[in-house]
Order: sequence, then structure tokens, then C-alpha cells
Amino acid sequence: MAPAGHLCRWGILSTAHIARKNWQAIRDAGNASLVAVASRDVSKSSQFIAECQASVPHPRPPEALGSYEALLSHPGVDALYIPLPTGLRKEWVLRAAAAGKHVLVEKPVGTNAGDVREMIAACEKHHVQFMDGVMFMHSRRLNRLRAALDDRERIGDIRRIASHFSFAGGDEFLRSNIRTHASLEPLGCLGDLGWYCIRFALWAMRYEMPVQVTARILSEISQGSNLPSVPTEMNGDLCFANGVSASFHCSFISENAEWANVSGTRGSALVSDFVLPFSGPSTSFAIRRPEFIVNGCEFHMHERRTDESVDEPSNNAPGSQESEMFRAFSTLVLEGRRDPHWADITLKTQRVIDACLASARNGGGAVSL
Amino acid sequence: MAPAGHLCRWGILSTAHIARKNWQAIRDAGNASLVAVASRDVSKSSQFIAECQASVPHPRPPEALGSYEALLSHPGVDALYIPLPTGLRKEWVLRAAAAGKHVLVEKPVGTNAGDVREMIAACEKHHVQFMDGVMFMHSRRLNRLRAALDDRERIGDIRRIASHFSFAGGDEFLRSNIRTHASLEPLGCLGDLGWYCIRFALWAMRYEMPVQVTARILSEISQGSNLPSVPTEMNGDLCFANGVSASFHCSFISENAEWANVSGTRGSALVSDFVLPFSGPSTSFAIRRPEFIVNGCEFHMHERRTDESVDEPSNNAPGSQESEMFRAFSTLVLEGRRDPHWADITLKTQRVIDACLASARNGGGAVSL
Repeated sequence: MAPAGHLCRWGILSTAHIARKNWQAIRDAGNASLVAVASRDVSKSSQFIAECQASVPHPRPPEALGSYEALLSHPGVDALYIPLPTGLRKEWVLRAAAAGKHVLVEKPVGTNAGDVREMIAACEKHHVQFMDGVMFMHSRRLNRLRAALDDRERIGDIRRIASHFSFAGGDEFLRSNIRTHASLEPLGCLGDLGWYCIRFALWAMRYEMPVQVTARILSEISQGSNLPSVPTEMNGDLCFANGVSASFHCSFISENAEWANVSGTRGSALVSDFVLPFSGPSTSFAIRRPEFIVNGCEFHMHERRTDESVDEPSNNAPGSQESEMFRAFSTLVLEGRRDPHWADITLKTQRVIDACLASARNGGGAVSL
Repeated sequence: MAPAGHLCRWGILSTAHIARKNWQAIRDAGNASLVAVASRDVSKSSQFIAECQASVPHPRPPEALGSYEALLSHPGVDALYIPLPTGLRKEWVLRAAAAGKHVLVEKPVGTNAGDVREMIAACEKHHVQFMDGVMFMHSRRLNRLRAALDDRERIGDIRRIASHFSFAGGDEFLRSNIRTHASLEPLGCLGDLGWYCIRFALWAMRYEMPVQVTARILSEISQGSNLPSVPTEMNGDLCFANGVSASFHCSFISENAEWANVSGTRGSALVSDFVLPFSGPSTSFAIRRPEFIVNGCEFHMHERRTDESVDEPSNNAPGSQESEMFRAFSTLVLEGRRDPHWADITLKTQRVIDACLASARNGGGAVSL
């Protein structure tokens, strides 16, 4: 389907909470318009639109639709943002692709890599763009961090990546939130949070795949006696060729934390807020290269640290990476191009997720990739 | 042997490089004096003393001794600081204890826990104090950090500890330094650097032992075709009861880095220089509790961070933790008290080290403790 005019025309399929954030991002992308929001119940999509318009108004309020099918067959929609629960997502990605709609899907993309392969194949077959909703991939900061990682003088060869992404959901969340529901989000914290840690590690490694993965479930919960449990706290370690390693920790139990550290032969880079940048007009990361100084019998460690600051669009921080995501996707659609890179990195991320879960379910034994 | 006067009288057994740092620490302890330095060659101990006096003069230059035995039988020495290589240490700790000398030994204390048990038993038998040379245990900062970790509002329940200690030794170091020599330092980076990471984790956990340990050798080197290899880069993960975990990375390959992060249900603490505090009049750590703020369709992550600064003795920073170590040890000796805590935590650290090495040598399989 060719886009009409100079704006990519979006529909949102489901009124999941995260869609509220991307409601704003579509508005701020600059080359996108939000045409319709669909729910299985039109009163829900109407309410969603009314609430979002009150908070972050679009120039023209989108249409409220009462079924997903109505959105798939909407002639004025080029691309769909699909934040449906993971357990329900595959069906609708396949149907969206078959309907000729480009798809931007929330993560974790699938319950396993087989599902993701099917989704990607459907998008290829129907010539529509595929991308997952990892917003930090589109931050301005990531390019600056790449330049630092590639600088032989600042980081050198990467040897170790460590990351941590957590929030403290609380008892009520653990017992009843969709994110711990075995059918809707069977990957639990691994899918919801670990996805970012693993993506970050793969990104840092330029998408080289680990050769071996080990992981552990540290805590899990079941929402009912007849439901399988889902992980609520996990750690894992990816082992790359040549002894490079990446550890991660993801948790619904620990307080908000979202840091990543990349250590190399010449220095290390610390990002304290790699998923959701702290609010403010700029984002940042630190390059650290402490220097050990020996002077006779006096030794000391001298801190050498450079904080790199990246200006973000002033009218839009901290939401700029979301807007950039919709802008990048919309550009592909408007230019009639397809970029297979996004599907490729989704599948790689999902494969590592699968290997981590397999290791964890097998008592932490190593899983080769 | 009862100390003469109000100063604990020290001898240094071997002129290892690290002894230069503690030469200053003994001087600055305030309740200690350095009586003698022993080497197998008196010209070496004389040279060591001359060089150190030129850099950091003691009020009275210590005596240069030409054999370790001469130090053991020295009637004017109460306590020995033993920085001998790990492979040679046990014999001299046993002999020092038998000679009635209190012993402060460098880490890693032994090549295995059996050796450490023998050393501790000898010290108990001969009623002398035992302590290992982990300087950060004696920093003023550690008490402040303990208070933060114990504060229900700042950290809550600890769920995850991550740490990293590395320096980039370079090719020459890897090929020929004592720290990669299979007989002298068979634990390689695990003993030299991992010891600190493991000790920090045990300290944070109030010396609860992990139930299971996994570790991996990421890089290793042999100094000769007939010598076994020693690890030059390793990571490990300690799994405690109730799903608490502690990962660490230690490396002779990555650039200087020495950070530790403790994450709990209410917040996390970051120490950027947990082993050797960065130079300056104070030390610090950060308490981080980012807050996720939702306001209609606008979401953002607000950074909440408190930097806690700890004043160090102004005439002695950054060496204060070393001086505090010798002061604490000297106080025990001068008061005629023995504190078994120090031996206890050494043995626990060594047992975790042993388990990590066993796991790593067995392809990363879990080792129970």
C-alpha cells in the first residue's frame, strides 16, 4: 500500500499502556500521523483516545475502532504499531502483514524464535517493513556511544559487558499483572526487561552472536495453581568468541535500575540509564579510564572520567528516542524502502532469549548457539 | 610475645612490590613501628629500605635482614606482614606462627582452602592474630556503605551484587610477571583480583555463604610449555539462598576498573573505586533510586541519586585504608586480644575462590558449597 501524501499513516492495535507513550512519539515524529486506534471494544478505544488527547493532543484526533479487523482493513492506514501481549501477538502480526500493513511490534516479539521467524517471513512475503519497539536503538546517544566504543584510544577491544534492568513491581503486580501471566507473557522479566539487556550486548558486539549462554531463574511466580510459572528475576551470561562475555540481570523485584557498562582493553563506558534516558535536555554516558600512579612508595589510583553529553531535541526530551523510532520507520515506509536489519536483530535477540530460558529451565547448564 | 611499649613492632617478610605501599601504611598507622625488613639477600632488603626511606621516611630506618629466619627469630618484632607469593606463603605463615609472630598476609591467602585452614590452625595454636591484607575492609567508607545497605528506605533487601576489577597488564606482564606464574600464583587473576570481588560480595551479604557457584575462564596463559596455565580473565556468579546473586568479572586484560554495585528492593549503591579509592581528600559512593513518573500520556524516568562523601584523614588520603588496617591489627596485638573474625572471612573467601576455580575448570558447571 502506497502512503498518501508526505506522512506515514499509523494505526495502533490495542490500547496497552505502553501505547500511551507511543501516542506521543507518533505525534512528535514529524513525518507521521495517527489515523486510528483499535480495541476489541470501541468504548475502550474511544476512552483511550479521549484521555490521550487531553494529555498530548494530536492535531486531528484519530478514529476509534471497535475491532482489530477494522484496523487491518482500514484503507487510510499504512503502518501498525502492535503492543498486544506477547502471547497474542503472532496472530495479529501475520494478519497485519497479509493485509499489507507495515508492522512495528512491541518486545519481546515472540514467545520463541520459531514464532519470530514466521512473523518475519510473513512481512517479507507481503513486502512490509518489520521492526521491534526497542526505543533506545533510535536514540542520538547510541551513535555517540558507538563512536566511543569504536575509538581504539577510549575503549579498545571490548572484553566485558554488564547490564542491569529492573523495577520493583510490588506484590500486587507480581500476583496479577499481565507481565507475570503465563499465557500472555510467558517470558516474564526475561522478555520484558532482559530483552533490552541482550539487545544492548548484541548491539555493542555489532550483532556477533554468543557461542554459549548460561542463565538462572532466581525468582518466579505463577498466577494460578494450573498456570506455569514465569520468571520474575533472572540473570544470564553470554559468552562470545575469544572470551568476551556479557552478563545481565533483570528483575521485577529490585528497584528501578537500568545501567550498562562496557569494558575494554583501554577503558570502559558506563550508561546509567540505557533504556529510558533520565529526563532533562540532554543524555549522557561516561568514559572511565582510571590511572594507577606509582611514585616511589606512594601508589594511588587517579580517576580519569569524561562525561559525554548528547543534546536531545529540546521540545521533546526525554521522549526523543521514541519519536526517532517512529520517524525512522515512517521514513522507510514513505521512501518505499525495506530494511531487513531490523528483523535480523529481532531474531538474534529472540534466539538469545530462547537460549537463556533453555539454560535456566535446565538448571543453568550451558546452551550453545 | 608481649609488645614492648605502646607501638606494635612490625617486620616485613619479603620485598614484594606491594610491601612498598604498606611501608607507608605502617608508618602512618599511629600505633606501629617498622623494625626490620627481611629478604633472602641482604642487599635487596637494604636497597628496599633505602629506596623507601627516600620516598616515605620512617622516623627510624628499619633493620635490613638477610634471611627470613632472622626475622622470625627477631626478639624485637611482634607482627609480620607477609607479602610473599601465594605459592610460597603457607610455609612461612606456619613458621611465623610457630615463632609466636602475629601475621598479616597478602591475598590470595592460599592456593586452596586446605592450605588456609592449616595457616589459621597454626595461628590459633600459637595464639597469634591472623588477618589478610584486604585493605578496603578497613576504609571509613565501608562503614558508611554498611549503614546505607542496612537502611530499609535506601537499599531494602539486597537482590543483586555486581562487581568488576581489572587492569590491563600488557603482553610483557602476561608473559613474565609473577602474577601469571603457575607455581607462584596459580590462581592468576582470580586470586589477585577476584579475591576482592568475592570478599565484597560476602561482606555485603554479611558473610552468608553462596549455595552454588559457577565460573568461567575467559582467557588464560602459560609461562612455559611445561607449566600449567593460569587464568588471566574470569567471570563468576555466586548464587545465595532466596535467589540473591552476585556476579563478578576479573581481568588482567581490561583497562583499570574497580566498581561494585549492590541492588536492592528499594534502591542501589554504586562504588566506582571499591578496591583502591580514587585519590583526593574524600571517598564516595552513590545511592541511586530512579523514579518512573507517569503523567497522562507522558512517561519519564527521573534520576534520583545521592552522592555520599566520606572524609578521609586529610594528611593520608588515599592511603588511609591501609593505615587503618595496620592500626586495627596493631590495636589487637597491643591489647592482647585475638579476633577470629578475620580468619573466618579469609577462609570463606578462599572457599568461594576454590569453588569458582573448580567450576571454571569443569566447563562452568555449578559447584555447590
